Amino acid sequence: MTSTSASTITGHALIGGQPELGAGGSFKAWNPSLREHLEPAFHMVDRDQIDRACSLAGAAFDTFRATSDEQRAGFLDAVAEQILALGDELVERAMQETGLPRGRIEGERGRTVGQLRLFASLLREGSWQDPRIDPALPQRTPPRADLRSRLIGVGPVAVFAASNFPLAFSVAGGDTASAFAAGCPVVLKAHSAHPGTSELVARAVVRAVAQCGLPAGVFALLTGTGNGIGQALVAHSAIQAVGFTGSRSGGTALMAVAGQRPQPIPVYAEMSSINPVFLLPQALASRAEQIGKDFAASLVLGVGQFCTNPGLVLAIEGEGLEQFCAAATAALNETQPATMLSAGIASSYRRGVEALGTHTSVTTLLRLEHEEHQGHAALFRVPSSDFLARQELHEEIFGPASLLVVCRDVEDMYAVAERLEGQLTAALHMADGSGDVEAARTLLPTLERKAGRILANGFGTGVEVAHAMVHGGPFPATADGRSTSVGTAAIYRFLRPVCYQNLPQSLLPAVLRDDNPREIWRRIDGALGKGMERI
Amino acid sequence: MTSTSASTITGHALIGGQPELGAGGSFKAWNPSLREHLEPAFHMVDRDQIDRACSLAGAAFDTFRATSDEQRAGFLDAVAEQILALGDELVERAMQETGLPRGRIEGERGRTVGQLRLFASLLREGSWQDPRIDPALPQRTPPRADLRSRLIGVGPVAVFAASNFPLAFSVAGGDTASAFAAGCPVVLKAHSAHPGTSELVARAVVRAVAQCGLPAGVFALLTGTGNGIGQALVAHSAIQAVGFTGSRSGGTALMAVAGQRPQPIPVYAEMSSINPVFLLPQALASRAEQIGKDFAASLVLGVGQFCTNPGLVLAIEGEGLEQFCAAATAALNETQPATMLSAGIASSYRRGVEALGTHTSVTTLLRLEHEEHQGHAALFRVPSSDFLARQELHEEIFGPASLLVVCRDVEDMYAVAERLEGQLTAALHMADGSGDVEAARTLLPTLERKAGRILANGFGTGVEVAHAMVHGGPFPATADGRSTSVGTAAIYRFLRPVCYQNLPQSLLPAVLRDDNPREIWRRIDGALGKGMERI
Repeated sequence: MTSTSASTITGHALIGGQPELGAGGSFKAWNPSLREHLEPAFHMVDRDQIDRACSLAGAAFDTFRATSDEQRAGFLDAVAEQILALGDELVERAMQETGLPRGRIEGERGRTVGQLRLFASLLREGSWQDPRIDPALPQRTPPRADLRSRLIGVGPVAVFAASNFPLAFSVAGGDTASAFAAGCPVVLKAHSAHPGTSELVARAVVRAVAQCGLPAGVFALLTGTGNGIGQALVAHSAIQAVGFTGSRSGGTALMAVAGQRPQPIPVYAEMSSINPVFLLPQALASRAEQIGKDFAASLVLGVGQFCTNPGLVLAIEGEGLEQFCAAATAALNETQPATMLSAGIASSYRRGVEALGTHTSVTTLLRLEHEEHQGHAALFRVPSSDFLARQELHEEIFGPASLLVVCRDVEDMYAVAERLEGQLTAALHMADGSGDVEAARTLLPTLERKAGRILANGFGTGVEVAHAMVHGGPFPATADGRSTSVGTAAIYRFLRPVCYQNLPQSLLPAVLRDDNPREIWRRIDGALGKGMERI
Repeated sequence: MTSTSASTITGHALIGGQPELGAGGSFKAWNPSLREHLEPAFHMVDRDQIDRACSLAGAAFDTFRATSDEQRAGFLDAVAEQILALGDELVERAMQETGLPRGRIEGERGRTVGQLRLFASLLREGSWQDPRIDPALPQRTPPRADLRSRLIGVGPVAVFAASNFPLAFSVAGGDTASAFAAGCPVVLKAHSAHPGTSELVARAVVRAVAQCGLPAGVFALLTGTGNGIGQALVAHSAIQAVGFTGSRSGGTALMAVAGQRPQPIPVYAEMSSINPVFLLPQALASRAEQIGKDFAASLVLGVGQFCTNPGLVLAIEGEGLEQFCAAATAALNETQPATMLSAGIASSYRRGVEALGTHTSVTTLLRLEHEEHQGHAALFRVPSSDFLARQELHEEIFGPASLLVVCRDVEDMYAVAERLEGQLTAALHMADGSGDVEAARTLLPTLERKAGRILANGFGTGVEVAHAMVHGGPFPATADGRSTSVGTAAIYRFLRPVCYQNLPQSLLPAVLRDDNPREIWRRIDGALGKGMERI
């Protein structure tokens, strides 16, 4: 960290495109592997700085959203390029601040850049605005006016970076990329666990903003720790929506602030999920050992620090289940403890595992030793009746711990499924052409009501950034089960419809004019088409 | 009302498809024209009845949403047919309960039936589920799983009927039609101003439910007055979304209940709008008199009891404005007072007009006499500086009253626009080929941020049920500016996405299987197509 290049970390917030030291108290990043602070000091922004960042975002909104799809796509591409141009400094700082290995950080950088480019391609395709035209019917009684509608950005978005994806769900991650694509400025609250990584990426975004000639208010980075900054940010009148990834308590606190504003705003908080895995009988009978091994690999991936970590396994008592347990524990015994993202996450994991292990109805199958700052796998077992009776057993433990719920039969498994809270994912392990398929068919309606993504013969870890991805789910998985925070559909969180009635062509947005030179798909009287006629 | 046919009004709630007297206190409908109660008595449902209606809705959800698009379309058509089969008894009872004339009620019945059939056509077209397929990429490193997503219903919806559309926004109105289309059961809180109309329509819905072989829990009618029933309904764990049309205080109260549930749910409340009308200079110079006449006609339509009533007019001081005022007051002087929908609305209108007329900075241009139960036009005038300084002048008065804000120049008009709250509509009156067009272009970004629908050379009254309609707008126009309550896009309020990863074809919903016999438009790797290839 001795470089003095423009991208060197200085501990500044970025407001109006300019570095600015937070006016409040200072804090430093923590290296969880070496257990030492990292230079330089960062500073808490104060109310005035939050207010200026939000006001600039509000002032930039109309200019930003008036850019063409191609201009905004170019901006997203420029952000990606600027992130890549940070080179190894970004990778090393992210490794230092998170304890994650190089391969993971480099992979996550690729995902982040790919995500920005995917949103650029969505803009270039053009139909993201859901353009609709109901032509005038002057001969009808009464005559119908000319009606045209499209989606526009909701306004400036407050984005809260996640701890567990220092690039892909942080400063220029999915929330920011989808808000930018929607034409919404972003005021970003950096996660205090990786402030240096955040500053580097934020400077890359600021360079892209300048390079593309956009107003500086399109993006700001706010630095700080604790809850005060976030609450002031969400309460600011210029902010029109919130993207958040973090804890259930953090997310629900922001939901309360947003709901109590004079003008309530939507909060998209991705919070808490135990991601039930259903091991159906014939799958266990035919390949319990392989499933056990695969489960162990998914459980410890990234020290279990994924929202989609398999925290709950449901299986029917019997030989297959014992084989699964033996294989899973054997595989887990082969794994090594590893550094967790932060001291807070490590101690919270330790407390969660401790509480579960000493719960009267819970049997500990495996609880591997690890140092204070680390996590290591833990596996517990509980009868379904106790699981149903104890709501505390339904709570997420963030890290490589999982609870096996032993069901009496498949009906018992259905009953447990029906009692689950909202989830990001639910996984079904089943044997083709067996009774498992009918069991899965019976479970599916329940799982559809409970989860955003249902997968067969796999685990939820590994969230593809794609068009059909849903990384969402009913509360408490997210604040708003009508949305996804990963994939191109994430843009719909930050859009709202506007209808234009009898407006002259010259005043209509380009996507709604009669001519359609980009040949964007539109709905004409409800039917998809590229001209002004139904096809 | 002496008929003893099956459709005769009996004062019952309808729960599980069966008539059931509310267990609480009784109330009667009021004939606002004759100022007398109408037989029979209705009864307040109690907690147990609310709980049973909601629990039955929850139990019916999976069966209802598993119906095919064609089955649900047939159900919507059957509801329409059953409403028409009610014949003149429905029209007469609605006239008695609302004071609205026959032509209006018959027109509204046509709109209600047309709305149900439009949603049926949306289901038959099929792409409402936004089906998306990202085929597996087994050769990629890492391999991509097969990902497919679609929208499903959110669950049972609590619908609160509006007072001012006893058919089109009531028992089988837009909220109910869009929820049914989405596969969501409806628990309907009847408006206490037209309980007999509500019972007739509810019995028609129940007959359609039975005729189509659907579970009886798909629909329930709850009867009562006051706020307690609605709050218990929104608080019920089976309810997953709320549709409401009514007052700002009523809507925000339900938003608070919904936000404080253990599992918060979305509320779509259409609440409050003053629908600003911008009279641009050249329009006034060229046709002030015609605009004044048209404004008067829009203002008194339905005794001003429309959400889109022109409650605010902005114009620049000068000769054109005086001509507009003269024409508007002359036209209004030709109108007659008329019965308002209820005693409560009439007294609230009287209080609102009284308060505005005695406001220190407001001049009364016109305030026409009317009896206690009636409304009649009132027109006021205020300088823009006072309007900006007094937030109470921004509040809706439900009825045929409007406030003219006199601006110094077009910049002053822009400033007023920027200070408005969220609106359902904003209207621009402009002269083609004049400087008005540039003024409109300057205003448009502000109006897009403020309103759900922007119209040229007209007034917002008359809300077409169509694909491109947006009857929505930022708070306080609605609780959720990302939605519309009129038109086919209203269905999206009650849908959420589910992703299926690597599911076998036999377990996928029909709309996501490889074969696509209905040739429904889907997104394949983001591109629209009807096969499995991008086109």
